[in-house]
Amino acid sequence: MSSTHDTTAPTVSTIRTDDLEWLATGAGILGTGGGGDPRLGRLRLQTIFEDDAHPDHVEIISPDDLDPDATVTSVGGMGAPTISREKFSSGDEDLNSLRAIETAAGETVDAVIPGEIGGANSIAPLCVAALAELPVVDGDGMGRAFPELQMDTFFIYGAPVNYGANTDEHGNSVVYQDIQSPSQLETFARSITVNMGGRSGYACPLMDGSFVGEYAIADTVSLARELGRRVHQSREGAGSPIAAIEDTLHAESLFTGKIVDVFRRNRDGFAFGEVSLAALEGEESLSIEFQNEFLIARDAADDVLASVPDLICIVDKDTGAPITTGSLRYGQRVTVLGVPAPNLLKSDAALDVIGPEAFGYDIDYSPLSDHSVIGRH
Amino acid sequence: MSSTHDTTAPTVSTIRTDDLEWLATGAGILGTGGGGDPRLGRLRLQTIFEDDAHPDHVEIISPDDLDPDATVTSVGGMGAPTISREKFSSGDEDLNSLRAIETAAGETVDAVIPGEIGGANSIAPLCVAALAELPVVDGDGMGRAFPELQMDTFFIYGAPVNYGANTDEHGNSVVYQDIQSPSQLETFARSITVNMGGRSGYACPLMDGSFVGEYAIADTVSLARELGRRVHQSREGAGSPIAAIEDTLHAESLFTGKIVDVFRRNRDGFAFGEVSLAALEGEESLSIEFQNEFLIARDAADDVLASVPDLICIVDKDTGAPITTGSLRYGQRVTVLGVPAPNLLKSDAALDVIGPEAFGYDIDYSPLSDHSVIGRH
Repeated sequence: MSSTHDTTAPTVSTIRTDDLEWLATGAGILGTGGGGDPRLGRLRLQTIFEDDAHPDHVEIISPDDLDPDATVTSVGGMGAPTISREKFSSGDEDLNSLRAIETAAGETVDAVIPGEIGGANSIAPLCVAALAELPVVDGDGMGRAFPELQMDTFFIYGAPVNYGANTDEHGNSVVYQDIQSPSQLETFARSITVNMGGRSGYACPLMDGSFVGEYAIADTVSLARELGRRVHQSREGAGSPIAAIEDTLHAESLFTGKIVDVFRRNRDGFAFGEVSLAALEGEESLSIEFQNEFLIARDAADDVLASVPDLICIVDKDTGAPITTGSLRYGQRVTVLGVPAPNLLKSDAALDVIGPEAFGYDIDYSPLSDHSVIGRH
Repeated sequence: MSSTHDTTAPTVSTIRTDDLEWLATGAGILGTGGGGDPRLGRLRLQTIFEDDAHPDHVEIISPDDLDPDATVTSVGGMGAPTISREKFSSGDEDLNSLRAIETAAGETVDAVIPGEIGGANSIAPLCVAALAELPVVDGDGMGRAFPELQMDTFFIYGAPVNYGANTDEHGNSVVYQDIQSPSQLETFARSITVNMGGRSGYACPLMDGSFVGEYAIADTVSLARELGRRVHQSREGAGSPIAAIEDTLHAESLFTGKIVDVFRRNRDGFAFGEVSLAALEGEESLSIEFQNEFLIARDAADDVLASVPDLICIVDKDTGAPITTGSLRYGQRVTVLGVPAPNLLKSDAALDVIGPEAFGYDIDYSPLSDHSVIGRH
């Protein structure tokens, strides 16, 4: 793997209130329909920044600048995004999860990193960081969002499954130790999350700085902010928001049309479903299946246009605003974009966990491109 | 509540290999069909006693002799007894659960106490005690067995729901902290137990010695051993085993007959079902419903002969050997005995948790007797 910088996005060293709208929009797009709605987290973080008891910004550090022996963990929310729109967080769950694994391990966390840059889980670690006065690593474990815990590069590349925690808004706390595999952790944590009402805070795993430096998808906090900035500035007359996304992410527009059907089912703690689109003119159509996130896009002939791990993003065709699986509605005019996945998601080890087969599709993964602007590898 | 001794069973100060057959038989009878089969635990404990690395006995201490500040917990197995007959324990789960809550709480456990004296969970704490060289309190939290964690006197009378743990044979460990209610703990722990394959080790709650002295059902390790001793000695010619049970427990024979039907269903981590019995001569019949343990016995006219919290015990009509819900078979010749429940199980607070209504039966509890020889209260 090369470590040449090939993203054009400038990196940031802080996140302040002024960055939040851009970050939320960028994270929403990178969420590929899931990861939760970042708007609530954005409001929460803004409130923290405005509170005199807490700092008015979060420090963002490059994975290159992490002390190799630093203790780093991911924190965020777990559960079906459709549930988290109605079952609000108390605001303390994610920090409580972090404190629970610190106690269990007898270690102090030095920095947090988003498990996924997509959706609400890009903002949740910033809230924890602001409350705990910790820096946030500029990167994440997915370069997008995925529905299950074992699906990040940390677990794919061998992070210890030790320690993890879930907490809920009542203060209930469940800690996982010495778990035999990331999938086993996911099974335990999902059943607890379902019993916590379908939404929980989580923290896991505990990693050292050198591991994070090697396996994080780098610079994605900066990338999400830059993506949002370009989309918002395009809306103000600097060009087309869709073109801004295509340009920033080296994305490919797969389809533009209207939503003609949405099928949803909350099952086993996930939001499963399928959305059907029809062209604004002509007979073309597209269908996209999802499990929290968009998984696979097929045309009318049932040919696969894009699939996991590549990103399938649905945005408003005029504003570029991201549309999550929970906010899909009949009649929305949208553009579907395919974004090449980071190369760390394309190894055989990664495809075993996040390729089409891992989601039950009997197809070979056919990458949109060998080149990705997400991460550096 | 009076603290007058009204059990006639002599108390014991140690348990050694020679006691185990008696203890297992007595615990099997007090298990009211559940609590797991004590035979496996008995073999395990015998192996530990024979191992030079461990002591050849376990010290039994009266709840009266506990240091008021001692830290005490219950340990044992959780899950459907039918599963634990096939999914064997590694032998370490229960001790690992104890170690997990010690670490979480930053405390050292000074003594263990059976959560339930019935079935395998009477022996499991003795195994942990032998391995960890801890004493076992002569008492338990039920004076029988019940299917759910919140159903012991510790939780009924206000033990903190903090801390608890489940572990499995792979070393997976899940710790519960700051849980809002015993029922919530049961929900979390049951779903984890199901995900651990239907059987787990558990430890909970952490209590102090004075609390245990007040709310344990006292002297039940001694009682179980004495019950078994009398049954075994009756088999050797000293009288009828059934009469020995009736005499030791002040039990009432409700029915003698043969098993003509057994319906079983493992659901939600429990062994649910119903057993039907017919008289050896004549037309009388009896049916008994169970959830791990026998819950309610009704005659042919649908009149309730006994219900929780009173003990309904099925034993071989000739040998007095206990028959668990998992070993019920067509054609067995059995005697059904009703045993008055300890008074600590009959308060309003207790009946809310373990009375007929708590198990979904729309009947008032009608005690077999106001007097019980189980416990002292």
